[in-house]
Amino acid sequence: MATNNNYAVIMAGGIGSRFWPLSRNRNPKQFLDVLGIGKTLIQQTYERLVQFIPPENIYVIGSEQYKHLIKEQLPRLHAANIISEPARKNTAPCVAYAVYKISSLNPEANLLIAPSDHVIMNDRFFVQAVETGFTLAKHKEVLLTLGIRPTRPDTGYGYIQYVESKDDDGAHKVKTFVEKPTLEIAEQFYRSGDYLWNAGIFIGNVKTWLRAFQQHMPELADVFKEGRKSFNTPKEANFIANAYMLCPNVSIDIGVMEKARNVLVIPAKFDWSDLGTWTSLHQMKEKDYLGNAVNNDQNVMTYDTTNCMIHVPAEKLVVVQGLDGFIVIDTNDVLMICCKDKEQDIKNYVSDIRRKKGDKWL
Amino acid sequence: MATNNNYAVIMAGGIGSRFWPLSRNRNPKQFLDVLGIGKTLIQQTYERLVQFIPPENIYVIGSEQYKHLIKEQLPRLHAANIISEPARKNTAPCVAYAVYKISSLNPEANLLIAPSDHVIMNDRFFVQAVETGFTLAKHKEVLLTLGIRPTRPDTGYGYIQYVESKDDDGAHKVKTFVEKPTLEIAEQFYRSGDYLWNAGIFIGNVKTWLRAFQQHMPELADVFKEGRKSFNTPKEANFIANAYMLCPNVSIDIGVMEKARNVLVIPAKFDWSDLGTWTSLHQMKEKDYLGNAVNNDQNVMTYDTTNCMIHVPAEKLVVVQGLDGFIVIDTNDVLMICCKDKEQDIKNYVSDIRRKKGDKWL
Repeated sequence: MATNNNYAVIMAGGIGSRFWPLSRNRNPKQFLDVLGIGKTLIQQTYERLVQFIPPENIYVIGSEQYKHLIKEQLPRLHAANIISEPARKNTAPCVAYAVYKISSLNPEANLLIAPSDHVIMNDRFFVQAVETGFTLAKHKEVLLTLGIRPTRPDTGYGYIQYVESKDDDGAHKVKTFVEKPTLEIAEQFYRSGDYLWNAGIFIGNVKTWLRAFQQHMPELADVFKEGRKSFNTPKEANFIANAYMLCPNVSIDIGVMEKARNVLVIPAKFDWSDLGTWTSLHQMKEKDYLGNAVNNDQNVMTYDTTNCMIHVPAEKLVVVQGLDGFIVIDTNDVLMICCKDKEQDIKNYVSDIRRKKGDKWL
Repeated sequence: MATNNNYAVIMAGGIGSRFWPLSRNRNPKQFLDVLGIGKTLIQQTYERLVQFIPPENIYVIGSEQYKHLIKEQLPRLHAANIISEPARKNTAPCVAYAVYKISSLNPEANLLIAPSDHVIMNDRFFVQAVETGFTLAKHKEVLLTLGIRPTRPDTGYGYIQYVESKDDDGAHKVKTFVEKPTLEIAEQFYRSGDYLWNAGIFIGNVKTWLRAFQQHMPELADVFKEGRKSFNTPKEANFIANAYMLCPNVSIDIGVMEKARNVLVIPAKFDWSDLGTWTSLHQMKEKDYLGNAVNNDQNVMTYDTTNCMIHVPAEKLVVVQGLDGFIVIDTNDVLMICCKDKEQDIKNYVSDIRRKKGDKWL
């Protein structure tokens, strides 16, 4: 069997604080079946990748504290393919760790970096886009990102402006990455057709990744270069524990992608959501004819209730009367009732709770 | 010590279905601390009576199934003073049973009949009114009822029309009992000054009660008369099991009070509520400056929330945003969110639940 040089790294370190109280520090969003389809987000992500990437080439990276959840939820994943981060340092150190580790295993690897907690609805288009990316990554010294054609002027996403390519290789040169815009600007982006949503899914050959770190984050590169002889040996954990203390807290977007000049975007056709808000989850979920998304409608009875998102324990009887556009979340230890229009305030409630009650319910 | 002829019977057989999901078949309203003051309604009722009636003269009557709750909540009550009903037959059989049983113990007894699940805020006035009643009951062949001066044209209560007495004995002749009126009629009653709320608290000497049953419910009287030799003996339970099968399902109001011509009403000055609705409970409870009554505000955080009634488990963290005039009840196994204006529909939700889910949550 020919060596397969295509690898994937699933990033599973997020704490999903916007989905409190469903998502908790100890059990964040990626480990939850937020869509209510019988699979958690990380399980869906893994199953999407294992369709076209050999299981031994799929890695999951995340905090040490999530190792047991990863093992439990992905039983086919080999223990050696779980990469534990000793600290939360945002995505640049996380990608660097994965790149250095995998390049030491296979210096020809083409590497897909994917979040664990997004929803992708049409796997076929996803596979198509990633395979295009792998082919380009193998032959060109480029970093690739998947861009989603906007379906609305969303202010919750980053945008990628691109320049239409003359080639017919499925990728276009990125002009700029733009952080979450105002509504006015989002509407311009949406109308112009030159902008795609930044899905945070990246592809590159490890040699290209290594050069990019060396060029744009040389101090970070220096930290990880020191470990060349430790990766994939019993010394790795010890080396990484020290290395992470030296790492800056920077995202891969800011640290590398926005600076690199050799970034291409592949416009992808799959339906995608980063599930960054309750409203985005509500959009994704199956709803009754009154617009209510209920995680378990067996024991939930609604009266004069419309456009609500109701997530409650399966064994609980729930009667909701007279709510329109509300989020109702019951997790046994926490009950939250909040108007969807005010969901941006949930982070304030969480910080009130941290201040007044400590971390018990977070 | 002179024999004290004053007795009280606390009726504790109600199932409090209007307070679902807080009140359940197995644990109804009278056994709950609905006011959140550290005492259940039946405990408050008992403590009010034991101030001026000897504990050995206080009886509690209710379904066999509540015997353990009565024992548990009223540890000072002697086991012999718990009267168990073998079936739910409304209040006429209940009062008859108590009257026949107590008259066989003490044929001179003056008997107060009081619900277990009402709220009375000013004990001093209650004691005053009942003592007036006992004195009259002892000396006159009358049945007495306590009437509450209306503070609003409430359509949830029965009314008592009376004729101002020339005597200065604190009681007036009852002209008519009126069932729950329409708002228009309630407003007339309220304005006229001739009507009092019927608090369902009755006083009479057992001899007067016996004659009233004989006269107005002769078939019921015949049933209980048969048991004269069984009351307060080991045969009582057996006799009553058979007797209850022969009893009609009638209230004491309809069976006796509305028919008797020798009924007097004592206008009482205490604040009173039958706690017949969530709104009436909300009125009684302590509220924050935004009108929210929260059973345990330690762990309940409200934002933009007004005029709500929130009752949740003490150990649960609750965040409520954006509700006005809602009832939020979480009992661990049931969550109900309902607009106060629609609380009359709760009985429909309960019957939907009975139909679709059986009695598990009732």
